[in-house]
Amino acid sequence: MGQLTGGDPSLLRRINSAVVLRALRGAQSPTLTDLTRVTGLSRPTVEGVVEGLVNTGLVVEEPAAEGSARRQGRPARRYRFRAEAGYLLGIEIGSHRVSALLSGLDGRIIGAGSKEVSESAPSDERLDKARATVADLLRRAGVPRDSLRAVGVGSPGIVEADGRVRLGTALPGWTGLALGERLRRSFRCPVLVENDANAAAVAEHWKGSATDSDDVVFVLAGLSPGAGSLIGGRLHRGFGGAAGEIGALHLLGRGATPETLLSTTDEPLHPLDEKAVAEVFALAREGDEHAVAAVERFIQRLVHDVAALVLAMDPELVVVGGWAAGLDGVLEPLRRELERYCLRPPRVAQSLLGEAAVATGALRLALDHVEEQLFAVEKTVTARR
Amino acid sequence: MGQLTGGDPSLLRRINSAVVLRALRGAQSPTLTDLTRVTGLSRPTVEGVVEGLVNTGLVVEEPAAEGSARRQGRPARRYRFRAEAGYLLGIEIGSHRVSALLSGLDGRIIGAGSKEVSESAPSDERLDKARATVADLLRRAGVPRDSLRAVGVGSPGIVEADGRVRLGTALPGWTGLALGERLRRSFRCPVLVENDANAAAVAEHWKGSATDSDDVVFVLAGLSPGAGSLIGGRLHRGFGGAAGEIGALHLLGRGATPETLLSTTDEPLHPLDEKAVAEVFALAREGDEHAVAAVERFIQRLVHDVAALVLAMDPELVVVGGWAAGLDGVLEPLRRELERYCLRPPRVAQSLLGEAAVATGALRLALDHVEEQLFAVEKTVTARR
Repeated sequence: MGQLTGGDPSLLRRINSAVVLRALRGAQSPTLTDLTRVTGLSRPTVEGVVEGLVNTGLVVEEPAAEGSARRQGRPARRYRFRAEAGYLLGIEIGSHRVSALLSGLDGRIIGAGSKEVSESAPSDERLDKARATVADLLRRAGVPRDSLRAVGVGSPGIVEADGRVRLGTALPGWTGLALGERLRRSFRCPVLVENDANAAAVAEHWKGSATDSDDVVFVLAGLSPGAGSLIGGRLHRGFGGAAGEIGALHLLGRGATPETLLSTTDEPLHPLDEKAVAEVFALAREGDEHAVAAVERFIQRLVHDVAALVLAMDPELVVVGGWAAGLDGVLEPLRRELERYCLRPPRVAQSLLGEAAVATGALRLALDHVEEQLFAVEKTVTARR
Repeated sequence: MGQLTGGDPSLLRRINSAVVLRALRGAQSPTLTDLTRVTGLSRPTVEGVVEGLVNTGLVVEEPAAEGSARRQGRPARRYRFRAEAGYLLGIEIGSHRVSALLSGLDGRIIGAGSKEVSESAPSDERLDKARATVADLLRRAGVPRDSLRAVGVGSPGIVEADGRVRLGTALPGWTGLALGERLRRSFRCPVLVENDANAAAVAEHWKGSATDSDDVVFVLAGLSPGAGSLIGGRLHRGFGGAAGEIGALHLLGRGATPETLLSTTDEPLHPLDEKAVAEVFALAREGDEHAVAAVERFIQRLVHDVAALVLAMDPELVVVGGWAAGLDGVLEPLRRELERYCLRPPRVAQSLLGEAAVATGALRLALDHVEEQLFAVEKTVTARR
């Protein structure tokens, strides 16, 4: 049984503060009277909380609008949440590209940048590209580095809680890399590292295909698919951060390896050679016999992997992203086969965020971190068995 | 964003009441002074709460023990939680057997009973057996039916929130059965119906092989395996209650059906014919070539299904139960193959509760329901995004 201590008056103050801050963020320059009405708190409580929030710089009194003076007395003071009180970054470190998104404390994106990187680049070079991408972005946006409050990073591989990559075969030198620690040297704020498919799942739930569902499996479809899951709106990382790494399942059968799966010759394809894969799909559309067979193998494998995830997790919705999602003829067979084999087939949708999914999810994780501090209620008062 | 309202004094009272009740359950006849010390609450608060609990019948003042009188004044009053203030049932409805467990409000089992039932029995007969098992058990234990506070039921199939069986191919007439509603007519308390593998997962976590882990996959191993999962100590039912129903996965390949998987002849085995299956395993131990091949097929299938669950969920621990767990040579190959193919292999343990797992889990779910009412803190104050 977890510890649960008796009623704590400072807890009440924190709840009230979080309630007022939420109301401030949700409303258009509310007055103290508005806040009293929305929160159900007493006027003196709201006044005290707002004064405290103004002192921290998170809230500011709005200047009175022209002509808003009431007939009698001065106009009621209006307040607003200062999204510019701090900034957040979402970074994707990918095999071909490093990209970054910048937002204020409201999560609205105010800048973006990216740089190409070779799939064979060593980890130092890849990290340098990430740093350079961020430096460019901050300079262009005129945002000083020390106003960053949190940085989220999405990366391939199994990522430990401290940001170390436990296993990352997709990128050279990635397994064992202390990714979080290395990036923390460039920032004075928390740096949160997350598996790329996990980050993409969070992103689709935030502003993509999954905004209306809390039970989602996001599939990063490629030659070796990965997946991220939300259960009840929360990211399911698994005990060791390896949940959804379904790519190894085919090793148990006598099926093709990822490299031979889509090959139309005896030569294996490089798992990250998206261009060669796209060519196989193009050949298949033209009716090339070997290519058609290869595409069928690829889709069968994807269906099998996704079915395993769906049977294990029973999500409401499957979102398919990654480069393979853009290829013709992937989504329909997937939908049809899941209908056939799953006891309760989920909806299947394509990623809305596409290439931006991982960086967007990384940004959301940074925002989550900051909001947990601003609205730190949940963790404190939840009694767990 | 979920609703979060401001500080609520009645919430504080409820928290305090739950805190005192927990302390009372955890201690050996504590005094008010003991309770004040353990809870950190003030003396008048503890006095008020204990008085309220005595009025509800959940707590009683202990008679002063002989010789416990202090030199000065009368001895301090001692209190105890009344586990006998209500009773709980855990029922398993299985293919060959219906069984039930009885406990007080502390979850300690005070009675058990079971009846055989034919695997081909229609649903009415199976429900009659369940009712008769309960009636016998209550009579033997001397517990009046109207002192039951909650009844948990574990059953094969996908079970909806209201206790209806959405799909249940293992038992005749089970699909579409309003199991919860039918059983509710026999009781005046809440009846909670849960999938059998889910109930077993809860049981192993409560008092079986998984007491030290909160991230567990329980596999009900048989010809068509089912599974239940705990994530962070909580049951993961899936969006439609179908999580873990991994048995359909093989349909996607060109593998054997459950019926032909273990057959050593051209005749398919009935999926519930445990005796025939055990004979195949016995033959394999004697070196029979067909039987050895059949057992290998069976284990490969089980490994594949469990690997799919493990890759999707990434549990800390896999507990194997069901009749196949008792067969020689299932656990070791499973452990070995998971080590080989999973990026982060889980521990693998055999069910400790064996045949009692499902009924024990059903009892725990009934206890959870009652405790949620007694210690109703969590749901009230958790702010969800």
